[in-house]
Amino acid sequence: MTGTIALLNGPNLNLLGVRKPEVYGRATLADVEQLCRDEAARHGLGIEAVQSNHEGALIDAVHELRATAVGFVVNAGAFTHTSVALRDALETIEGPLIEVHISNVHAREAFRHHSYLSPIASGIIVGCGIQGYAFAVARIAELTGA
Amino acid sequence: MTGTIALLNGPNLNLLGVRKPEVYGRATLADVEQLCRDEAARHGLGIEAVQSNHEGALIDAVHELRATAVGFVVNAGAFTHTSVALRDALETIEGPLIEVHISNVHAREAFRHHSYLSPIASGIIVGCGIQGYAFAVARIAELTGA
Amino acid sequence: MTGTIALLNGPNLNLLGVRKPEVYGRATLADVEQLCRDEAARHGLGIEAVQSNHEGALIDAVHELRATAVGFVVNAGAFTHTSVALRDALETIEGPLIEVHISNVHAREAFRHHSYLSPIASGIIVGCGIQGYAFAVARIAELTGA
Amino acid sequence: MTGTIALLNGPNLNLLGVRKPEVYGRATLADVEQLCRDEAARHGLGIEAVQSNHEGALIDAVHELRATAVGFVVNAGAFTHTSVALRDALETIEGPLIEVHISNVHAREAFRHHSYLSPIASGIIVGCGIQGYAFAVARIAELTGA
Amino acid sequence: MTGTIALLNGPNLNLLGVRKPEVYGRATLADVEQLCRDEAARHGLGIEAVQSNHEGALIDAVHELRATAVGFVVNAGAFTHTSVALRDALETIEGPLIEVHISNVHAREAFRHHSYLSPIASGIIVGCGIQGYAFAVARIAELTGA
Amino acid sequence: MTGTIALLNGPNLNLLGVRKPEVYGRATLADVEQLCRDEAARHGLGIEAVQSNHEGALIDAVHELRATAVGFVVNAGAFTHTSVALRDALETIEGPLIEVHISNVHAREAFRHHSYLSPIASGIIVGCGIQGYAFAVARIAELTGA
Amino acid sequence: MTGTIALLNGPNLNLLGVRKPEVYGRATLADVEQLCRDEAARHGLGIEAVQSNHEGALIDAVHELRATAVGFVVNAGAFTHTSVALRDALETIEGPLIEVHISNVHAREAFRHHSYLSPIASGIIVGCGIQGYAFAVARIAELTGA
Amino acid sequence: MTGTIALLNGPNLNLLGVRKPEVYGRATLADVEQLCRDEAARHGLGIEAVQSNHEGALIDAVHELRATAVGFVVNAGAFTHTSVALRDALETIEGPLIEVHISNVHAREAFRHHSYLSPIASGIIVGCGIQGYAFAVARIAELTGA
Amino acid sequence: MTGTIALLNGPNLNLLGVRKPEVYGRATLADVEQLCRDEAARHGLGIEAVQSNHEGALIDAVHELRATAVGFVVNAGAFTHTSVALRDALETIEGPLIEVHISNVHAREAFRHHSYLSPIASGIIVGCGIQGYAFAVARIAELTGA
Amino acid sequence: MTGTIALLNGPNLNLLGVRKPEVYGRATLADVEQLCRDEAARHGLGIEAVQSNHEGALIDAVHELRATAVGFVVNAGAFTHTSVALRDALETIEGPLIEVHISNVHAREAFRHHSYLSPIASGIIVGCGIQGYAFAVARIAELTGA
Amino acid sequence: MTGTIALLNGPNLNLLGVRKPEVYGRATLADVEQLCRDEAARHGLGIEAVQSNHEGALIDAVHELRATAVGFVVNAGAFTHTSVALRDALETIEGPLIEVHISNVHAREAFRHHSYLSPIASGIIVGCGIQGYAFAVARIAELTGA
Amino acid sequence: MTGTIALLNGPNLNLLGVRKPEVYGRATLADVEQLCRDEAARHGLGIEAVQSNHEGALIDAVHELRATAVGFVVNAGAFTHTSVALRDALETIEGPLIEVHISNVHAREAFRHHSYLSPIASGIIVGCGIQGYAFAVARIAELTGA
Repeated sequence: MTGTIALLNGPNLNLLGVRKPEVYGRATLADVEQLCRDEAARHGLGIEAVQSNHEGALIDAVHELRATAVGFVVNAGAFTHTSVALRDALETIEGPLIEVHISNVHAREAFRHHSYLSPIASGIIVGCGIQGYAFAVARIAELTGA
Repeated sequence: MTGTIALLNGPNLNLLGVRKPEVYGRATLADVEQLCRDEAARHGLGIEAVQSNHEGALIDAVHELRATAVGFVVNAGAFTHTSVALRDALETIEGPLIEVHISNVHAREAFRHHSYLSPIASGIIVGCGIQGYAFAVARIAELTGA
Repeated sequence: MTGTIALLNGPNLNLLGVRKPEVYGRATLADVEQLCRDEAARHGLGIEAVQSNHEGALIDAVHELRATAVGFVVNAGAFTHTSVALRDALETIEGPLIEVHISNVHAREAFRHHSYLSPIASGIIVGCGIQGYAFAVARIAELTGA
Repeated sequence: MTGTIALLNGPNLNLLGVRKPEVYGRATLADVEQLCRDEAARHGLGIEAVQSNHEGALIDAVHELRATAVGFVVNAGAFTHTSVALRDALETIEGPLIEVHISNVHAREAFRHHSYLSPIASGIIVGCGIQGYAFAVARIAELTGA
Repeated sequence: MTGTIALLNGPNLNLLGVRKPEVYGRATLADVEQLCRDEAARHGLGIEAVQSNHEGALIDAVHELRATAVGFVVNAGAFTHTSVALRDALETIEGPLIEVHISNVHAREAFRHHSYLSPIASGIIVGCGIQGYAFAVARIAELTGA
Repeated sequence: MTGTIALLNGPNLNLLGVRKPEVYGRATLADVEQLCRDEAARHGLGIEAVQSNHEGALIDAVHELRATAVGFVVNAGAFTHTSVALRDALETIEGPLIEVHISNVHAREAFRHHSYLSPIASGIIVGCGIQGYAFAVARIAELTGA
Repeated sequence: MTGTIALLNGPNLNLLGVRKPEVYGRATLADVEQLCRDEAARHGLGIEAVQSNHEGALIDAVHELRATAVGFVVNAGAFTHTSVALRDALETIEGPLIEVHISNVHAREAFRHHSYLSPIASGIIVGCGIQGYAFAVARIAELTGA
Repeated sequence: MTGTIALLNGPNLNLLGVRKPEVYGRATLADVEQLCRDEAARHGLGIEAVQSNHEGALIDAVHELRATAVGFVVNAGAFTHTSVALRDALETIEGPLIEVHISNVHAREAFRHHSYLSPIASGIIVGCGIQGYAFAVARIAELTGA
Repeated sequence: MTGTIALLNGPNLNLLGVRKPEVYGRATLADVEQLCRDEAARHGLGIEAVQSNHEGALIDAVHELRATAVGFVVNAGAFTHTSVALRDALETIEGPLIEVHISNVHAREAFRHHSYLSPIASGIIVGCGIQGYAFAVARIAELTGA
Repeated sequence: MTGTIALLNGPNLNLLGVRKPEVYGRATLADVEQLCRDEAARHGLGIEAVQSNHEGALIDAVHELRATAVGFVVNAGAFTHTSVALRDALETIEGPLIEVHISNVHAREAFRHHSYLSPIASGIIVGCGIQGYAFAVARIAELTGA
Repeated sequence: MTGTIALLNGPNLNLLGVRKPEVYGRATLADVEQLCRDEAARHGLGIEAVQSNHEGALIDAVHELRATAVGFVVNAGAFTHTSVALRDALETIEGPLIEVHISNVHAREAFRHHSYLSPIASGIIVGCGIQGYAFAVARIAELTGA
Repeated sequence: MTGTIALLNGPNLNLLGVRKPEVYGRATLADVEQLCRDEAARHGLGIEAVQSNHEGALIDAVHELRATAVGFVVNAGAFTHTSVALRDALETIEGPLIEVHISNVHAREAFRHHSYLSPIASGIIVGCGIQGYAFAVARIAELTGA
């Protein structure tokens, strides 16, 4: 493999498959990470996966991975709508950032319609279920020529 | 082929490859339609493609295709931000609607941040270039079991 | 018959009876037009009916009918909320304008609460189903002494 | 007669025919009540009429009539724009509520454009003069099968 | 005496001299009414005074006095900020309306900065203590040539 | 008994147990008043209960009880959101004011999220059903050392 | 005379009697100043009058007069709505400030409804014509015990 | 002639001289086109004129003329305030865009104060009657060195 | 004991009794926890208490306790106003959520008036001091039939 | 010459040709004044030119010239966005007012999009460079029949 | 000395030491100017000091000093919040601009939270008393290599 | 040394010198801390430095240092705009708080213009590069008499 994609999942995504399955589906976080590994492997890439409910831990992870990852796939969960600090961290990466949301946030509460990450993302994939993660990995592969 | 996906492109997308190539890339509308046909074929599906600068013509097209298409891929261009009528038309379809934007509209003028279509879409793919169309076709294939 | 009432129906109203029957009922556009003809006939008036999904076509229709119609009954559908151009056209008529909405738009999404037509209408009839059209015709008959 | 429609008129409507006749016309409240009685009689219905300048008195009236009236015709006057309490009272009725305004409130001051009653009404009739009351009675007759 | 000025005081003004004396002073409502009578007498006018905590009672009073009073001095208290119905009633009078507030409402909570009465008043006197009532009476005398 | 708590219930609360039982439960206003009497008795206190659909009547009640009540428990119903006048009256009491709402107003329409009373209340108890009244009485007992 | 009232008139008030006489009347600035002198004389006070179209000149005048004037009567004209600097200057005076507007600014354009001076004024007199100046002088006399 | 200026007129401008002559004057659209031809001829330029009530038709016209016109004079009428699509089309032209409005839109309803075209125009001429078209042609001549 | 109530206290509540005692009182966090234990014991319930200044730690705690706790008492402190992530975590619990604030947040800065938790809470108790915790425990006991 | 046009230039326009030449061009204020004189002369008119950085001085100039000038050409610079006082002064003139901006203010900061002068102007010419002044002079000539 | 720093103080700062000493302290404007001279001297720089209550005079001063000053220290007082014209003038300087406020404007009225100067300043020093001026001078020395 | 200043740096400031050097410069966090130590030493003070990407860790640090530090220098980075919890923690300190931002946040995105810390800070230093930290230390020395 010639490169690694950082996969960041934010707060409550460790409950994937448990919390509101009618909204988020029954796949677990492990399923998502495997899905990404499979898609990445198709392009000769690897995945470095991090999940945390701590904003600071996600920022730390960005700092650690920013030098080595060819791109970032980020589902920041609720931090999407509230964390300027995570945005600032992600602005320091050089490869592409793809923002993913499993459900259609635009069909939910108004406070979920605004994302601090979207203006600095390369691409945004919303409401495509966990398939959206695969699209995100494929997009980074395309953009980085992997 | 067991089904057809409706592909709608809105105003000014006939200029694809000509208008602002630094924003939208150099691929033409014909390239986009071919890309969708190729991706659809992988799933045993066909494409019915319409482009118009006329809001009414797009609505007419929705009415014609709503009975037969298994899903809609729609890049409504500027009508995304202004057309309640197109939204109303698309609310009458039964299959999934995937909204596509080639560029990252969230990194552009504020009036491009709101979409009348997003709340009724199944999924939204933004800023993934023309590859986003392929993702949209793949998503409809997934959702419709094609 | 001593006069004609212009009956304008806007986008997606050709789907009447098909689209969301739980909201709009099962009567078709033809039913609506017949209902208006019947009511108009009671007052010795006729009906000139136009439906289009094209904003421009509705404006053209206003221009054609403005000289001869004694009044306008208009359900502009989604254009109610977005079309300044249709308002401008309707401002040029001399007889009364009655705005009709089949469903109660005030019980739906916020963007349906504002109408560009209401400030220039004589009367507005909302949420009375297709019976609202009959009321509108009767009102014009009353106002024009028909 | 097989049923009664409650007819509620709010503050200052006792001045009908006196206050701003160029806006509200020269018919009096007694004329309005008679008009409603005549229209109701056509459908085999009666009218129970109440007018008050006291918000509390109107609420009391709703409480008294909610068990027996088949529907409510309400012109709440200025309380339309300010009274959550009257709305709460009217939400407890089971038959249809038709909101009436004699003048076109959307062509007047901005604070008259919002109605607390509209979202819970079945239908809304605006700017049709006192004829609007007759339409309202006819609509309730239609909805209740009278 | 050749004419009568209506003096209306709204909710809680019966507590004048008791409630928040540091804001409203120690004079009672009776003192205010006497002050107005004295000032009116100087111009050959009388005073008809009404105080109520009931919006409806104030509206009723306007209806009763509108035919005979040469002008209205109104301190509507909290109804200033919430009562469209009282405004509608006062719009029906023909003589001048002077709005009075004892304290400086613009130095208090934001919701006290807007008055439904000000746009229809002839004059507004704010923060002049109970002397403001005397100014109001004098102004009506001036305007009516008393 | 060494003191009395004033218990004020606003518009439509006379319908308690009848109106929207799925929201407000099946207990009646009499049940609520008895519940408060029982809780108050535990602390050696009595209850003076008033319910009215008239804003003015509630203000009058505050004026009558302000001198003698050791505290106020107030569920102003819809007046919570619209009555500056009731707020002004309650600002004149010296003992504590506890605001109660049976249902969770923050989970309902946006216009129910703002309370004119909250900024001047000692405590606010929301969505605890009629048990909230007992909490309110207990809180006043605590604050007044009863 | 035992004291002096500063009388400040702002931009365009030198045109009084010339500009929009239907709004401001036909009295001139000299008339206004004489009116104030007469009213002040009744209370044993004098007037120091300044008019300028220059914000800075008015501020300079406040600085000069703040030590000696017993109070300020200020009609800041358009600066009412735009000058924080004049407000800052007037905040340094120790005697009362009475704000005067000849016309009813609340019945005019929305940008005239906000005053930077009102929150720091003792009293505000609006729409009483030039008689409002006399009231203002009388109020300062009252407040300063003149 | 060495070049052509595209002259686009939007919805309802075909009624020029008929609709609201007190606002727009009595000159017809043909007069406007001739005026532009005369002014253009003075600079050795020609005019290609299009009027439509259809947003799509105007966009189509921009696409056809963008390659050949040296500049665009556009009075988009009501589309000025609502059409992002027309803006997008006009952003693809290379020569200058001059926006024209016959009447002073800033003295009319608030929704006419915002223009989607102004931020991408070279110049904007408002309220100069049909003479504004001549100024626009002259400005393009100046900018293109004609 | 047949069940456990989770008691969560957010940032700075470890300073209880130290920080702003005039606002929050002199009781310490240990006092609060003991108070809850005592009240819970009355209903045969236990308390699992967590306090953290780390949003992520509180979310982790919700995840750990959601399976076993019969209900949650949560004073999220400042996170009330900013944490969508904590809300998302608390939305996954099945028992009731009671939100507690010691002081009256509605009488403080405007940014403390909005709570992300209130719309998903069963009940909200504000400004009842630490007694509010006891009410919250009692409410959960009531709701869970403990 | 049979008349004079007043030409007012506001703050910082004395730096024309020096300040931001890439925005405003290299022509100086003297060039602008000469351009206007030349254009005016073509219509048998003269120019009275004033430039000041002092709002008060511009107002004084309006007062001096309002009696004699046949029309005003005004580029108020930054005062366009902040000066109600200058607007009030210009509202007193009787001839036409043409507002000029050299650059396209609608393509700059949001606070430059609002003009206090536009609603009272006859015409507005924006972004036409210094040629806009010539258009303005020509427009006044047209309107005044010069 | 090899350079001069322009020191501009805006309206009411001539009252320094007199006006609100509890907010601004007891140092006078002369003290501030001397403080700046001392700090500048440490870096081999001089000070050119201007104070005015006239916006126009401050703009004139900027124009005079822009060619020679190495940087500007500006406390524009109330003009900070209202003067676009002063901003425009200061945008023409080439050296650094440091904005100073003696008190913490963010802890005062909301209208003092916005500054027209901040977006074009190099640095902003707020609430550091008159020591802030010394910091500003030191910063300019640092930036200009003095 | 007679006292210690707490120096808090928030999220992403550990990347100082690496992230966006064109905005933040090339100095590292270690350089900043040394700079503060040097400046503090000049005043006989020490520095206790903390940096964290975790909001909770910063709050913990405030709690630990609030008893011993004579003042706080805080650059909260992105938490400035989002953390009410950090504000609450800092409100508990007794010495002065100086807020520092290296870059000019007012010249960046709108969401960086609001600070939760500014209203409770003694002073705020923005856009002075890392020199701003030295100013902050000097200010605390001045305020604490060090």
